[in-house]
Parts: sequence; C-alpha cells; structure tokens
Amino acid sequence: MSVSAPEEVVGAFIAAIEAQDIDAAIDLLADDVSYENMPVSPIAGKDAVRATLEGFLGVASRIEWPVTRQMTSGSTVVNERLDRFQIGDGWLELPVAGVFEVDSDGRICLWRDYFDMASYTRQLAALTDNH
Amino acid sequence: MSVSAPEEVVGAFIAAIEAQDIDAAIDLLADDVSYENMPVSPIAGKDAVRATLEGFLGVASRIEWPVTRQMTSGSTVVNERLDRFQIGDGWLELPVAGVFEVDSDGRICLWRDYFDMASYTRQLAALTDNH
Repeated sequence: MSVSAPEEVVGAFIAAIEAQDIDAAIDLLADDVSYENMPVSPIAGKDAVRATLEGFLGVASRIEWPVTRQMTSGSTVVNERLDRFQIGDGWLELPVAGVFEVDSDGRICLWRDYFDMASYTRQLAALTDNH
Repeated sequence: MSVSAPEEVVGAFIAAIEAQDIDAAIDLLADDVSYENMPVSPIAGKDAVRATLEGFLGVASRIEWPVTRQMTSGSTVVNERLDRFQIGDGWLELPVAGVFEVDSDGRICLWRDYFDMASYTRQLAALTDNH
C-alpha cells in the first residue's frame, strides 16, 4: 500500500472536480472532512460535502480550476486558483485561495477556500438570467 | 548591507500595520508594488497604497492581524490571517488568505489578499452605526 503525497492528493481531487466525477472526488476525502467556504458556515463530513458539490458543480457544463500557484509544507497544501464554471454560453470565473490538509491515509481532512461570495453570486445571476 | 528573508519582511510589515505605523509599513514596499484586494481592482504603487492604508486603518483604534498559518517558497510568502480592527466598542474580524512576493531588495512587490468583501462591509456598517 502506498499513500500519495499531499500535493498529489490535492491534484487528483482538483482533476476529479474538473472531470465532474463527484464519486472520485469524494473518495479522496476523509470521513470527517471539514469543507470551509470562508464566507459561510463550515460543511462537515463526506455526505454533506457531496450534496454541496452536486449542487454547485451541477449547474456547470464544464469546469476548469487552473492552479496558478501552489506550495506544500508537511501535510498542508496551499494554492491560488481561478475556479471557472461554464454556465450556458458564458464562464463564471472566481479567484480562490485554498488551504488543504491531507491526513496520514492520503485523504483530505480540511478544504478551506477564501473568496469573495458576491463575485460568485453576481456572475451566477448574470449567467442564469440569460436562459 | 543585508537583505531580510521574505518571511521577515512580511512579519515586519504586519507588525508595522498592527502598530499603525504607516511610514514603517510603506518603507517595506517596492516603489511599483501591486496591492491586490481580490474583490476589487489592484492598487498600483506606494502612494496609492499609502492612501488606501490611511483610509481603512484610520477608522480603527487598535489593529491585530494574527497569522494562523504561513508558508514560504523562494521569494513568495503565503499566510492565513484573522485581520482584526477595533472600531468603537467592537472588533471587526476578517479571515484573509494573503500572498506576498518580496523582491531582491527585501521589499514587498506584490501583496494580494483573498477575502469576502461583504463580511467586511457588513461588520463595518454595524460598528460605525453605533456611534
């Protein structure tokens, strides 16, 4: 048995999100994962994270989360990303700073994203009003 | 002449902010610094950064920016902070992820903060309405 390095786990997780493969993404999370979008309350546990991901990924026909900078220290990975969601004919683009902690089983136990909620909701409203 | 390590420069910068010593903070910035609060447009150059800092630090009677996590890679420093501002009888508290680049002269040439603007403006309104 081998356990992947933290940056490999985070890379595989983001690849699963981009592929809209929620099962693969959830498999990379610890059972007691804490998913923290800083503007709102934390989401605790795999099932709640699955429901959240199904909701906000489900509106997109394509997803790209290019990582523009990434650093790893021990079990922690920090990155800057531009989370892009194709919705209808347009793209929602959200600058994000993410913090991930990976446990000794190679699963993500903390996923914390810093971003501006209004930048997200404003674009989402504009893109969904078109259809 | 010695040039401080990137994490020392960032630490001194945050200490200057907490001391509300804007001159000391500005001395640690490169002339062509880019100050990027991600929800709004970038601010270019020392003079514009000084005007911005005077505005948003000036409303606070005390400032504390505890760093809860920090990583350095080469000339880049990334941190998580809880930026706290005492305004009147209360404290505004803003979770922030910061990215700093320090140039070869030991001056900050990029300061980029990820945060939720509404979390800031909502608290600011509540604290200033009291007085």
